[in-house]
Amino acid sequence: MRTLWRHCQIATMVDGQYNLITGAAMLTDGSQIVWLGKEGTQPEGAVNDEVDLQGNLVTPGLIDCHSHSVFGGNRSQEFEMRLNGASYAEIAAAGGGIISTVNATRRADQQQLLTSARKRIDALRKDGVTALEIKSGYGLSFADERKMLQVIRMLADEMPLALFSTCLAAHALPAEYQHRADEYIDDICQRWLPDLHAEGLVDAVDAFCEHLAFSPEQVERLFRTAQQLGLPVKLHAEQLSLLHGAGLAARYNALSADHLEYLCEEDIALMAQHGTTAVLLPGAFYFLREQQQPPVALLRQYRVPIAISSDLNPGTSPVLSLRLMMNMACTLFRLTPEEALAGVTCHAARALGISAHCGTLQAGKEASFVAWDVEHPAELSYWLGGTLSKRVIYKGEEVWHD
Amino acid sequence: MRTLWRHCQIATMVDGQYNLITGAAMLTDGSQIVWLGKEGTQPEGAVNDEVDLQGNLVTPGLIDCHSHSVFGGNRSQEFEMRLNGASYAEIAAAGGGIISTVNATRRADQQQLLTSARKRIDALRKDGVTALEIKSGYGLSFADERKMLQVIRMLADEMPLALFSTCLAAHALPAEYQHRADEYIDDICQRWLPDLHAEGLVDAVDAFCEHLAFSPEQVERLFRTAQQLGLPVKLHAEQLSLLHGAGLAARYNALSADHLEYLCEEDIALMAQHGTTAVLLPGAFYFLREQQQPPVALLRQYRVPIAISSDLNPGTSPVLSLRLMMNMACTLFRLTPEEALAGVTCHAARALGISAHCGTLQAGKEASFVAWDVEHPAELSYWLGGTLSKRVIYKGEEVWHD
Ligand SMILES: [Zn+2]
Ligand SMILES: [Zn+2]
Repeated sequence: MRTLWRHCQIATMVDGQYNLITGAAMLTDGSQIVWLGKEGTQPEGAVNDEVDLQGNLVTPGLIDCHSHSVFGGNRSQEFEMRLNGASYAEIAAAGGGIISTVNATRRADQQQLLTSARKRIDALRKDGVTALEIKSGYGLSFADERKMLQVIRMLADEMPLALFSTCLAAHALPAEYQHRADEYIDDICQRWLPDLHAEGLVDAVDAFCEHLAFSPEQVERLFRTAQQLGLPVKLHAEQLSLLHGAGLAARYNALSADHLEYLCEEDIALMAQHGTTAVLLPGAFYFLREQQQPPVALLRQYRVPIAISSDLNPGTSPVLSLRLMMNMACTLFRLTPEEALAGVTCHAARALGISAHCGTLQAGKEASFVAWDVEHPAELSYWLGGTLSKRVIYKGEEVWHD
Repeated sequence: MRTLWRHCQIATMVDGQYNLITGAAMLTDGSQIVWLGKEGTQPEGAVNDEVDLQGNLVTPGLIDCHSHSVFGGNRSQEFEMRLNGASYAEIAAAGGGIISTVNATRRADQQQLLTSARKRIDALRKDGVTALEIKSGYGLSFADERKMLQVIRMLADEMPLALFSTCLAAHALPAEYQHRADEYIDDICQRWLPDLHAEGLVDAVDAFCEHLAFSPEQVERLFRTAQQLGLPVKLHAEQLSLLHGAGLAARYNALSADHLEYLCEEDIALMAQHGTTAVLLPGAFYFLREQQQPPVALLRQYRVPIAISSDLNPGTSPVLSLRLMMNMACTLFRLTPEEALAGVTCHAARALGISAHCGTLQAGKEASFVAWDVEHPAELSYWLGGTLSKRVIYKGEEVWHD
C-alpha cells in the first residue's frame, strides 16, 4: 500500500534541526517512509492512495519518553488542600502524598487502571504523541508492580501508538519495608526484576535517586542487576539535590538521566561520553514552582542531546499535553522552539533507544508523523493549549484526525 | 422545549462557591434553567427530552472576559528569535513587537481576520467557553479599528457563544501619531468612539494605562467620553508599574481593572467601593516571566471579586485554553481551585456586566453550561492540557461534544 502525502511542509528533524522542506510531499509504503522531498519530484511507480495535507506542517510523531501514565485515583484534592493552606503534615494525615497514589493503585484492578490510563493516553495522542514510555512504581509490591506492568502491555496491545514499559519499583520505599531500604532493593534485584523480565514485562529499569528515595549505592546495585539481565537503565536524578546519580547512570550507559535541575558539569561530561540523553521535565518544575534551572548552556556545550517529556504523574505533573511541555521548555528553561521540537522527536527517540527507526522523517524510517495546522514549526512551542494537530499517523495509518 | 439533564453533579457557583449538588439533575426550557436539584425531586410537568450526563460534573459555561482574539499573523517567529538570543532592538528592526501585529491586522481583510479568529475561538469553545470578550486595538486607525469591531460582530452572528466587543483604540500609539499622543486620544474621543458607538459596534471602552502607552490623564479623558456615550469602561492597569489606573477606573465605576500585578491597597479599596472586578491574567505573567505577584491576599480581604482570563493575544499570551489559565492562577498566583472556577464563571460575568443572567447555575438563569468528565471540580484546575469537556451547552443547545 503506497500512499502519497501531498501538499505539505516537512520538518524532518534530522540532526535535531527543522530542515524544513516547503512545497513537500512524502511517499509511504505500509508502515515505512519510502521517500520525501519537493512535491513533483517523487520517484516513479504506482501509488495506491493520495492524501492532500492542505499545506499543513508535517513533523515526526511526538515521543513522550518519561511518563507515569498508569495510576489509581488522582491528587486533585491534595492540590486543593494545599492551596487552601493545609500543611504537609495535614495532607499526610489526610492520606496525601505518593502513598495515596500507591494505595489507590493497589486498590484498583487492571480494568480500572486501563480505563483511566486510556483517557490520559488518548489526550496525549490527540496532541501528536505516537510513542510513549510508561513506568511502574505505584505498586511497590511484587504483585502490584506486576499488575501495573501488565496494564502497560495491555494498553500496548489495544492502542495505536508504541508503548515502552519501564520497571520503577525503586520509586519510593513502601511502608512494609520501613527502615529496610536495602532489603527492598535486594528483593527487587534478586526476585522481582528477574521474574518480571522473564515474563517479558520490562523494557528498561529506572529508579528515583534522591535523599527522600534511594541512595546512589542502592541505585548502583539495581543497575548491576539490570546489566546482568541485559536491560537498559535510566534514572530520576538531580531533581532536588546533587547526588551524582546522573554520572552514575552514565557510567552504566544509561539511555537517559531525567529531571537534572542540580546536575553538575562533571556528570554532564560523563553523559556526553556515554551517550546518555538528558531528559528535562518542565511540567514538574512548573507545578512544584522550583527555582533551580537545569544547566541548559552546559548541556549544549557538551552536546548532550536534550529530550523533553511530560512526566505525566498525579503528584507533581498532571500533564496531558506534550506540546505544553514544549512551551514550558522554551518559556521556563529558555530552550529554542527547534530544540523543544527535537526534544520530543529525535532526542526523545534516543532516550528510548529507538532512534534507528523513529524520531526523524527520512526514507527507511517509520511512517509515524503529525500534520499540524500551523505555518511554522515555532508555533508548536508558541501556542499554549488548543489542538493544533489535524491528523496523527502511526505506522502509516491515520489514528486520529480533527 | 423542556429538557431534563440527568445523572450529574452540579457546581452552581452561586456566591463564588462550588455549592456542589451530587446525584443532581437540571431542567431547562429553551435557553433558560427552570430548576436544578437532587435527581428525582424535579417539579412535575411534561419533559420533551432527557439527556443522561453519565455522572459528569456540570458547571456554568466558562466566561473569558478579556481577550484580543482578533488579529493578523502571529508572533511565533519573534518568540523564536528571542529564544535564539535576539535583542529587543534586533527584533524591532526585524519588524517585531506590537507594531508587527498592527501591520498584519491592517493588511488583513475581514475574511482573513474572521478565519483565523474562528479557529482560536473554537479552541476556547471546546475547552468550555460560552461567553467571550474581544477587544479591538490592533487597527489604531479609524478604518482598521472599525474593521476589527465589525469582525467581532460578524463572529457573534455566526458562532454559538456570546461575544462582547470592546473598543481598545487606546492600546498603543500608532506611528502616524508619534509624539502626538494627546491628539490621538482627542481623535478617539471626538470622532472615532462616537461614530463606532453610533454604528452599534461597541459594548465597552478599554485602554492601556502604562508608561509605554497612555497616561492616567489621557485615560481619564477617554473615560469621560465613554461616560457621556453611556458606555461602560475597563482598563489594562498596573501590569508593569503602579500608575493608579485601577483606582481611576474604579472612580469611573469600571466593570474591571485588568492585570494588576502592581496594584496598591488604596486602589483595591476604591475597587471594592465601586464594584470593580479584578481581572488577573496569569498567561501574560507566565509568558513574560514576571516576578511581581498581584496582591491576591488584599483583594480577598477587601472582597474584590477576582476574575481570571486568557488575555489571548499574539505578543504576550498566545493562550487557547481558559482551563490552563485556571491552573496558572492556582500554581502561579496561589488561588484555590474554587476561586479559579469562580474567576471564569460568576466573577467573569460581573467583569462583563452580565451576572444578572450568566455565570451561575440557578433557576431563571441562562442554560449555558459544560458537562466535564471529572469527578471533582478541583480537577478542572489540576489537570494541565487535555480536553475534559464532554458537552458544551449554550442557551440550551449542545454546541460541542467530545
Ligand atoms: Zn518521573
Ligand atoms: Zn489585554
